[in-house]
Amino acid sequence: MTRGGFSCLGLRRDRAALALLALLFLAPLAARADDGYRLWLRYDRLADDALRRNYQAAAGRIVFITPAGTASPTVAAARREIEAGLAGLLGRAPQVALEQGPQNAALGDEGYSLGFRRGSGGRLMTIAANRDIGLLYGVFGLLRHVQTQQPLASLAGTSRPGIRRRLLDHWDNLNGTVERGYAGFSLWDWFALPDYRDPRYTDYARACASLGLNGTVLTNVNANALVLTREYLVKVAMLAGVFRPYGIRVYLTARFSAPIQIGGLKTADPADSAVRAWWKAKADEIYSLVPDFGGFLVKANSEGQPGPQEYGRTHAEGANMLADALAPHGGVVLWRAFVYDQKVPDDRAKQAFNEFRPLDGRFGPNVFVQVKNGPIDFMPREPFHPLFGAMPRTPLALELQITQEYLGGAVHLAFLAPVWKECLESDTWAAGAGSTVARVIDGSLDGHADSAIAGVANTGTDRNWCGHPFAAANWYAFGRLAWDHSLSAARIADEWTRMTFSNDPRVTGPITGMLLASREAVVDYSMPFGLHHLMATDHHYGPAPWVDNLRADWNPVYYHRADAEGLGFDRSPSGSNAAGQYAPQVAQVFGDPAQCPEQLLLWFHHVRWDARLRSGRTMWDELCLHYQNGVDEVRRWMKAWDALEPLIDRERFDHVKALLRRQERDARWWRDACLLYFQQFSRQPLPAGVELPGGTLDDYRAVELHFVPGSPKNW
Amino acid sequence: MTRGGFSCLGLRRDRAALALLALLFLAPLAARADDGYRLWLRYDRLADDALRRNYQAAAGRIVFITPAGTASPTVAAARREIEAGLAGLLGRAPQVALEQGPQNAALGDEGYSLGFRRGSGGRLMTIAANRDIGLLYGVFGLLRHVQTQQPLASLAGTSRPGIRRRLLDHWDNLNGTVERGYAGFSLWDWFALPDYRDPRYTDYARACASLGLNGTVLTNVNANALVLTREYLVKVAMLAGVFRPYGIRVYLTARFSAPIQIGGLKTADPADSAVRAWWKAKADEIYSLVPDFGGFLVKANSEGQPGPQEYGRTHAEGANMLADALAPHGGVVLWRAFVYDQKVPDDRAKQAFNEFRPLDGRFGPNVFVQVKNGPIDFMPREPFHPLFGAMPRTPLALELQITQEYLGGAVHLAFLAPVWKECLESDTWAAGAGSTVARVIDGSLDGHADSAIAGVANTGTDRNWCGHPFAAANWYAFGRLAWDHSLSAARIADEWTRMTFSNDPRVTGPITGMLLASREAVVDYSMPFGLHHLMATDHHYGPAPWVDNLRADWNPVYYHRADAEGLGFDRSPSGSNAAGQYAPQVAQVFGDPAQCPEQLLLWFHHVRWDARLRSGRTMWDELCLHYQNGVDEVRRWMKAWDALEPLIDRERFDHVKALLRRQERDARWWRDACLLYFQQFSRQPLPAGVELPGGTLDDYRAVELHFVPGSPKNW
Repeated sequence: MTRGGFSCLGLRRDRAALALLALLFLAPLAARADDGYRLWLRYDRLADDALRRNYQAAAGRIVFITPAGTASPTVAAARREIEAGLAGLLGRAPQVALEQGPQNAALGDEGYSLGFRRGSGGRLMTIAANRDIGLLYGVFGLLRHVQTQQPLASLAGTSRPGIRRRLLDHWDNLNGTVERGYAGFSLWDWFALPDYRDPRYTDYARACASLGLNGTVLTNVNANALVLTREYLVKVAMLAGVFRPYGIRVYLTARFSAPIQIGGLKTADPADSAVRAWWKAKADEIYSLVPDFGGFLVKANSEGQPGPQEYGRTHAEGANMLADALAPHGGVVLWRAFVYDQKVPDDRAKQAFNEFRPLDGRFGPNVFVQVKNGPIDFMPREPFHPLFGAMPRTPLALELQITQEYLGGAVHLAFLAPVWKECLESDTWAAGAGSTVARVIDGSLDGHADSAIAGVANTGTDRNWCGHPFAAANWYAFGRLAWDHSLSAARIADEWTRMTFSNDPRVTGPITGMLLASREAVVDYSMPFGLHHLMATDHHYGPAPWVDNLRADWNPVYYHRADAEGLGFDRSPSGSNAAGQYAPQVAQVFGDPAQCPEQLLLWFHHVRWDARLRSGRTMWDELCLHYQNGVDEVRRWMKAWDALEPLIDRERFDHVKALLRRQERDARWWRDACLLYFQQFSRQPLPAGVELPGGTLDDYRAVELHFVPGSPKNW
Repeated sequence: MTRGGFSCLGLRRDRAALALLALLFLAPLAARADDGYRLWLRYDRLADDALRRNYQAAAGRIVFITPAGTASPTVAAARREIEAGLAGLLGRAPQVALEQGPQNAALGDEGYSLGFRRGSGGRLMTIAANRDIGLLYGVFGLLRHVQTQQPLASLAGTSRPGIRRRLLDHWDNLNGTVERGYAGFSLWDWFALPDYRDPRYTDYARACASLGLNGTVLTNVNANALVLTREYLVKVAMLAGVFRPYGIRVYLTARFSAPIQIGGLKTADPADSAVRAWWKAKADEIYSLVPDFGGFLVKANSEGQPGPQEYGRTHAEGANMLADALAPHGGVVLWRAFVYDQKVPDDRAKQAFNEFRPLDGRFGPNVFVQVKNGPIDFMPREPFHPLFGAMPRTPLALELQITQEYLGGAVHLAFLAPVWKECLESDTWAAGAGSTVARVIDGSLDGHADSAIAGVANTGTDRNWCGHPFAAANWYAFGRLAWDHSLSAARIADEWTRMTFSNDPRVTGPITGMLLASREAVVDYSMPFGLHHLMATDHHYGPAPWVDNLRADWNPVYYHRADAEGLGFDRSPSGSNAAGQYAPQVAQVFGDPAQCPEQLLLWFHHVRWDARLRSGRTMWDELCLHYQNGVDEVRRWMKAWDALEPLIDRERFDHVKALLRRQERDARWWRDACLLYFQQFSRQPLPAGVELPGGTLDDYRAVELHFVPGSPKNW
């Protein structure tokens, strides 16, 4: 928006050019300090001279081509970005021209094509798109190509997104706190809005647009109806105005009881005509302020949130009322399938399927059901959610969690692309082999025109946006997968590392190694073999497998079911038969301990301590060794990171080093607390290679943490 | 601490050198973007070439001189600062040497002397001090001299602080929120501590040290006992370690009931030997972790905080118990005089005096009684507190509020140096003419060796530290006055403007004009003539003179006493006689409406609407004209600011412009709401020159703001 905000990131490149100069004055530095604010949009001069000259020659003049061929705020944003970006990377800003060109159906609404052509003054680079936003995406594609030092020869080509709505869900409260936020507080300064537009909003939009994200849900799913009052809607409209040139539409969470709380009605019953009229008028008001408003995200009848069931109506009836109000304006409803019943179910993992599958076909055309990747709640590892493939008549939105609620907050290094790829590539067998979750989500399996994917954001007011210097890799990975779910985790890790740290292979090798190993390490030291929900109450940081005093399905003991015989939740046909919620081909694999992938074994089966796993070792021994391996892996990263000291700037080096030290300590805490606890049941010694615990079980039980970030209990 | 953190501010100067280069690449900018992070420590190249060359010649070699002559972390910090500072300002880092020299009694523990001498290679600049911290203060003094473009000829001289303890009081909660904080959230990331030391902590220490501040109370006076547990004390120790080289000692708030809450005792009675032993052991523990710990700040028996009165003990008995525990280690207790009784007093303004004056002489030698500048609570204008001069046997610490709780948060421009100067220069007449509050506070009036001044901080996680780009002027002003209370508000405003914006007189003239006019403008549009406590409940933002439904002495109507006859609180001998709490010479002036300064008239007197003021106009007319003048003044700033557009960087220009627009709107809101409300009683028309209100009184009464920053109700 403001040039100030724009140049706030853009200008940093001047620091690169003067790094040498700075070294003359200051105590010697390993590398320039870097506070991480620029994320992956670092336009520092390319170190590879030959490549830089190559690009300089090719990218001196760039032509934007659209069917309209006319300027717009989006075209202006694309132009500013390419000028600042290449000025930094290549040392010279390009000349940019805009011209009219033909439609290209292959590019769709948001795709772009990069190429070259001969012009009067020599070679020109071209960025073509059907709509202006495609130009901006093309600019970011070009910059990524240069930033990651890809050869000029491989630049030409086209790209378009596989999923239509690519959203960040912010669990941000109006008081500035962020539920499950670990990187400071909310980016949205509601009190200063609408008067003051923080330049950071623009940088947020740039970062999102650089990945192709095109929607943002500003508010927490545990919603406050106040955001739907005019007082707040004018603030929302101002944010929407900042984001609009970057192709980002604003969505809000709708508290189902809003007609009562801010509307003065006595009921929120979706069958009540006054309620329906209230929502219609509210939608009209919103669209009068935000003409491209995206729609509502709703958490209803879950964890105390109000919903249609209070009035004897179904989720579909509730969702459709809101959808009807939005439909005339082109808005959608994203209705969450994450539901918790008031009464304890026989198996919590089965509840969403049981409630939602019967409703398939009952939702309005502009309703998505938004389903988490797994049936419990963003655990380090879950099987894919059984609803995927089970509701062919309803477009399902996939909800992923970028913020690390159960994977160490902003303290632990945990790259989540492997979690998400695992889900996306899972075969539901809903329409035979190859019916992957990805194909359910992108609409291709069931022929849905509209499609959506959402990531619960990990952003906050921390200067580096995401807290842990590596956590931005998850924002990056989510955006890249939302655009193209076929990208590999390794490719994404490589891109992010090159753009964020360095193209130097001495750097990219170790860092991508850490990234790609990290999720499995976290699984190992916290919840291996499909164990889940072993974490401490409320804040979800650290181990507490012993907790048994809450509502049954909030207790870790409900999930791990450790006893003298063995460990794990029997969800096979002999148990809750949650496995039976999957397509038969999948149910058979999950439901049979001999076929079930070992990484999910204790999710689906109660396994004897002395059962032999594929390695030939017993369940108990393998469990112990996995916990130990998680710790060892973190120690390997510590060594690898220390070796990078000469190649990383001091500020980020020190930060990561401090966090790895803490992650190692936490990994030992997880290992020791869990193994001592389970050992009460297994009554077996730790196998060779597993370190003795640092404390007693009572020590670990006595640990009480205060004010762990992100916990709603803090405020 | 870390070089990264240090260079985080220091390195910015390279952006200056490349500003020109940047202009070649980017859309034209009025001036470089500036996010305000560097505060007044901007070491951009001096624009005045002749002066720069002059300084280059003189400051090429600098000698640090102390009696010890040995290196230390403080010497290293001083060296880094002068190297980075002069490299930026002059384009060349000096050579720095350290040598031994004589004690200089005139400099005391913290003072410094700047000078020149001839050396082998020509002229040398010298910075001499008795202790290393004096060198650091000398470095900042030298840098300020250069930054404000003072002539080299006026550099030589000495400086030492007038007050011994110069403290920031942070009302920061352990959950990260800041009571009455308007610039984001707490700077202290308790969860990341002690592992991760944010480089920002070092920059905080640099900013404080640059002003000579030497203590920081990390936690809210509405205290959480948890900070005294070992879990938190190791975190405190880490912060103390970061601050130590910068001469800053850490203090904590002590919750009086901590022995119960974290000590497992049944009582917190200061006469109980177990309680006394607990505090002694706790003090020992703290000093084992933080050897230079400053001491405890305590709010007791006030606004619901626990205290000794619950056990029938006096404030002195409570304070002395803590002081006894700290005494062996050299710590002090700062015991707040801001007390609210459970029952409503006849005049709230009299309460602290009534409770504390009888205790003079009963406090231990290491106890301060900490007194706010005025008897109510940081209003835009108050008379000085009657306790000043009334407790000669007790060292009194002066508590000022840097954060603008009652002056528009971080939205309104309000430079507070005039508020504080007004207090410091007030003559208490306690020991005859010239017994100023400043002399009470610095210990000179009553011969106290120890002395203290505290400012409630306005810092937070906002990138620019204080929210409003002008709010850092208040941090700056507090620090400068704490060092030298004889400095004028104009001098401080000029320094800050030069260091923060520019030495260009086209900039310094208008900005210092705005700064120096701002406090009176806020008084005018909100609470002129000594009106006070007219603000809205809880969040204290905006007008609500009509509130009458709270505990009596929390209601605005309790304070303004508007009726058909007139306006104001009669505190003369015919009323509550709060005026009688002052020395007779002062009491006579305040108590007589004919002598009372008009700016405090309604504080001390109930004045008829038709009474004639010195202008010849009636009370009502003058009241209206003052409200109007406050609005007009803000409009003058808006014009002045707009004219500065070519001379201010885009980011700060836009930010201030947006805030001034809002301040003007708020000023009208204050004016209209208050005048419409008072008009019900005066039953007189608005005089000529006063604009008609924009709404009705009912409109203003209906205003309800949500989540106003800083309100404890938000969390």
